[in-house]
Amino acid sequence: MTRLFNDPAAFADEALEGFVLAHRRWVRPVSGGVVRSVPAAPGQVAVVIGGGSGHYPAFSGLVGPGLAHGAAVGNVFASPSARQIRTVAKSAHTGGGVLLMYGNYAGDVLHFGQAAEQLNAEGVETRCLAVTDDISSAGAEDLDKRRGIAGDLPVFKAAAAAAEEGRPLAEVVRVARHANARTRSFGIAFSGCTLPGADHPLFTVAEGRMAVGLGIHGEPGIGEQDVPSADEAAELLVSALLAELPEGVDQARGQRAAVILNGLGDVKYEELFVVYRQVAGLLAEAGVETVDPEVGELVTSFDMAGVSLTLCWLDDELETLWTAGADTPAYRKGDARASAGRTDAAEQRDETAEAVPPATEESRAAARTALAALTAIRDTVDENAEELGRVDAVAGDGDHGIGMSRGSGAAHRAAAAAVEAGAGAGTAVGAAADAWSDRAGGTSGALWGVLLNAVAAALGDTDRPTARTVADGVGEASAAVRRLGGAEVGDKTMVDVLVPFAETLATATAEGEALAPAWDRAATAAEAAAKATADLVPRMGRARPHAERSLGTPDAGAHSLALIVRAVHGVLAAPTGR
Amino acid sequence: MTRLFNDPAAFADEALEGFVLAHRRWVRPVSGGVVRSVPAAPGQVAVVIGGGSGHYPAFSGLVGPGLAHGAAVGNVFASPSARQIRTVAKSAHTGGGVLLMYGNYAGDVLHFGQAAEQLNAEGVETRCLAVTDDISSAGAEDLDKRRGIAGDLPVFKAAAAAAEEGRPLAEVVRVARHANARTRSFGIAFSGCTLPGADHPLFTVAEGRMAVGLGIHGEPGIGEQDVPSADEAAELLVSALLAELPEGVDQARGQRAAVILNGLGDVKYEELFVVYRQVAGLLAEAGVETVDPEVGELVTSFDMAGVSLTLCWLDDELETLWTAGADTPAYRKGDARASAGRTDAAEQRDETAEAVPPATEESRAAARTALAALTAIRDTVDENAEELGRVDAVAGDGDHGIGMSRGSGAAHRAAAAAVEAGAGAGTAVGAAADAWSDRAGGTSGALWGVLLNAVAAALGDTDRPTARTVADGVGEASAAVRRLGGAEVGDKTMVDVLVPFAETLATATAEGEALAPAWDRAATAAEAAAKATADLVPRMGRARPHAERSLGTPDAGAHSLALIVRAVHGVLAAPTGR
Repeated sequence: MTRLFNDPAAFADEALEGFVLAHRRWVRPVSGGVVRSVPAAPGQVAVVIGGGSGHYPAFSGLVGPGLAHGAAVGNVFASPSARQIRTVAKSAHTGGGVLLMYGNYAGDVLHFGQAAEQLNAEGVETRCLAVTDDISSAGAEDLDKRRGIAGDLPVFKAAAAAAEEGRPLAEVVRVARHANARTRSFGIAFSGCTLPGADHPLFTVAEGRMAVGLGIHGEPGIGEQDVPSADEAAELLVSALLAELPEGVDQARGQRAAVILNGLGDVKYEELFVVYRQVAGLLAEAGVETVDPEVGELVTSFDMAGVSLTLCWLDDELETLWTAGADTPAYRKGDARASAGRTDAAEQRDETAEAVPPATEESRAAARTALAALTAIRDTVDENAEELGRVDAVAGDGDHGIGMSRGSGAAHRAAAAAVEAGAGAGTAVGAAADAWSDRAGGTSGALWGVLLNAVAAALGDTDRPTARTVADGVGEASAAVRRLGGAEVGDKTMVDVLVPFAETLATATAEGEALAPAWDRAATAAEAAAKATADLVPRMGRARPHAERSLGTPDAGAHSLALIVRAVHGVLAAPTGR
Repeated sequence: MTRLFNDPAAFADEALEGFVLAHRRWVRPVSGGVVRSVPAAPGQVAVVIGGGSGHYPAFSGLVGPGLAHGAAVGNVFASPSARQIRTVAKSAHTGGGVLLMYGNYAGDVLHFGQAAEQLNAEGVETRCLAVTDDISSAGAEDLDKRRGIAGDLPVFKAAAAAAEEGRPLAEVVRVARHANARTRSFGIAFSGCTLPGADHPLFTVAEGRMAVGLGIHGEPGIGEQDVPSADEAAELLVSALLAELPEGVDQARGQRAAVILNGLGDVKYEELFVVYRQVAGLLAEAGVETVDPEVGELVTSFDMAGVSLTLCWLDDELETLWTAGADTPAYRKGDARASAGRTDAAEQRDETAEAVPPATEESRAAARTALAALTAIRDTVDENAEELGRVDAVAGDGDHGIGMSRGSGAAHRAAAAAVEAGAGAGTAVGAAADAWSDRAGGTSGALWGVLLNAVAAALGDTDRPTARTVADGVGEASAAVRRLGGAEVGDKTMVDVLVPFAETLATATAEGEALAPAWDRAATAAEAAAKATADLVPRMGRARPHAERSLGTPDAGAHSLALIVRAVHGVLAAPTGR
């Protein structure tokens, strides 16, 4: 269990702070994460990795020459926000474009995807790659749905080594895809970790039993069996990986592979070595030549007791990239080294403090209305936080209320500060969007950031927003949430409410209704749609391990959206509203 | 707990095998441990470290350029035997002499001390240094009694870096002593590890509580308290170390220190970073400049949940040595690197298979008598193993019977093989001595090795042993056991029996008695002395955590020695004896 912490809410930040203090030779802190202490050569593609905290050395421990240029570091097991990723990427960028790399998890896909859209919009050419090595998380016909686990390392490293050679962004992306396509992992686990401040483990496996294919955050596995001997464990891992050769590898015999036997935290080095002894024997028997094997803790899950085996099937190009030098806090190889001259963190300014752009008086008035709406949203969320938590707990981990509360509170504060500084409606709502996504964490936080950003773009800082402008913004928001979130109507998510809300609002305003009555109609449609989600079963996922149980209960995200649009109607219908 | 293993008895060997398979770039296997894959320059002092298994990266993970030249690797939590240490040292030696380094534990002190005596006798100039950094294990007035924990690393590294510079053995020893004198550690623990095959942890700490100053094998701590916050833990660790500055450091302010925040296994990286954040802050407040801090797992105890802080107070010389490059499987720094050209393990032969030296027929006859005695010893030990375990369990961990059984069995087999090959008495008993020490493990195994080796030296391979020869050998054995074991009469150990036995035998043979009746008198004295140990309270130690409870029970080692000398008398008095 995790025993040493101060305020659990501050854990990830404090860990990052201590990490930086111990590793100034390699990294310097920026808002949202870390970048190399010595910047890469101008024009080199910047490889920016990231994910939640709790997986050290992933992700901050892998920053340095020959590996990542920066890491965006989220809260415990939560994706970094799009804003964090953007800040880190811009600090790491030296003109050659950016490749964002992360494990394939809903929250990460959302936040990194959003950051990439923003960076591209700002003129920083950016591409994304989600690592999908865990063969137990989806079938071979669904490669894109697989999770990323310890296969992160060889895929990150291949791309980073290609960047280090000075290859252009398109080439680095090709290499990353190629390495990902040839990387497979498979894991077993004996027990879950207990997060800072939690009083029970994230998941449990019965004493003497072992979960097969379990994810690193407690995602469901594909089976359970008695704890095997070390040799049997090796046999299980090796045979699973030899049973699914990637495209382009016709047979195992005669192949070379990078091998990673990864400890998740509480399986210790000597045990790993005992298992590796047999892994090496079995691979040799199968005619596979191991290249620079790694046995140790590369991607952990606090003190989770588990182990995974990764094979990255090498060709000449991948072998050169895998064996190239690297020098990071937690991973070193060959000649590369963090150079002596480092950039002093204090000298460095990042782009968090942005000036408020000019706005018309009309737009400033609209910003005040938006602020009133955000106040109402915050109050409604706070009032209903406990209920939202209860609803969420039926299918998921019950933190929807807390996350929404944190997000809406931060959004309100950011908008208030912006209005205070004279911002127009677009800037004020945009600040709220970033703050929400930044502070709420999780998938719903990211989606609210996306939603509000789309609305902000429609509002702008110049014109007095009309009913049509607002409806267009909401329509954009609906499209963006579906595009980035990947959910459709019927999946039992907020999309089930957002789509009919946006459509009703569009219809009503197109018919010439004023904003307040149109919003009222749309809110009524939203409420009906939220209620109807009780009849749906969501797709399974990490956030909803007990999805099937939720039949008969509405979706928490759908429910909170319906509450919010109703609260906003109160503001729009009030005498001071419009 | 340790979950992944095959045969628990083979765990340490299999772990070493897997470790070597994964790290061929740095190390090659030799009998008893590992040495660098690329030998050091001729004439360089060889720094050979070692200790029990279960502490990875200590000790095998620290072999490579800039750090150790070889590591002798014992069984789980058991010292390597003198034979293992000798083999590793001879493989690592390139003509400049050897420095043996290890933590200050009874078993290690014995085995390394014995190996040093043998190496020096064979013409390999060898010195020893036991690291004594754990301030909780003895008072500042008893520096030599302190245990070695994570302070191993800076002390090993200082000596190794000095060796790498080409300094002569005396200089390397001086540096090692100087570094050890300036290194202090202090630790806390939340729970113990469960060894391979064991069904309960080595020790437990109540949920929510923390042991202060606990050793890395469950040795008693100096207090217990509630689990603190991370900041409070940092405060506890830092203040304990600042309260005891070493000689030559008048005040903390203005000093530089190498800092190691070490995780014992189940306290994970993020927690360590949260603690380090405050450690760094408190040291800065106290005016201490940190140099190349290390935060991670450097000396573990399987999955024990604990953390220790080490400060090595640097002067210019020690700072240069601490910051020098190193390249080992688990620890890398700066420029040093394991070179590409490596020695193929298969090409290498070590000195384990020794030819039987020539012997006279008279000495061969004596060897047969010695073998009969060793058969009787084995049978007596096996008959009484359970009782010996019970006696030992009163004060200690109850493994005396098992260890003696393993040792005497191995000794018998080795002597039988030697006799079969035509060995004289000296060679046969010497083989038995090495096998006993090699297989029994623990302190009693080492002492039986010492004892039998002294007897073997007296017997030789030429002359027919007389009663006086045997008595002289036993006298030598008594002196050697006291010298290397450090116990005196009255400490409630086998010494309480060995000394009166040797003295009575010497008196009786000096008076002209034949061996059998003289041995009978001596055995009677031994039996009385063994009984009398019931009235003594032993010194506390890791092997005897409940020492005070043993008042009223004889000492297990004393008891087994008395049983053994009586059984040998049966052989000497029999018609085929002499």
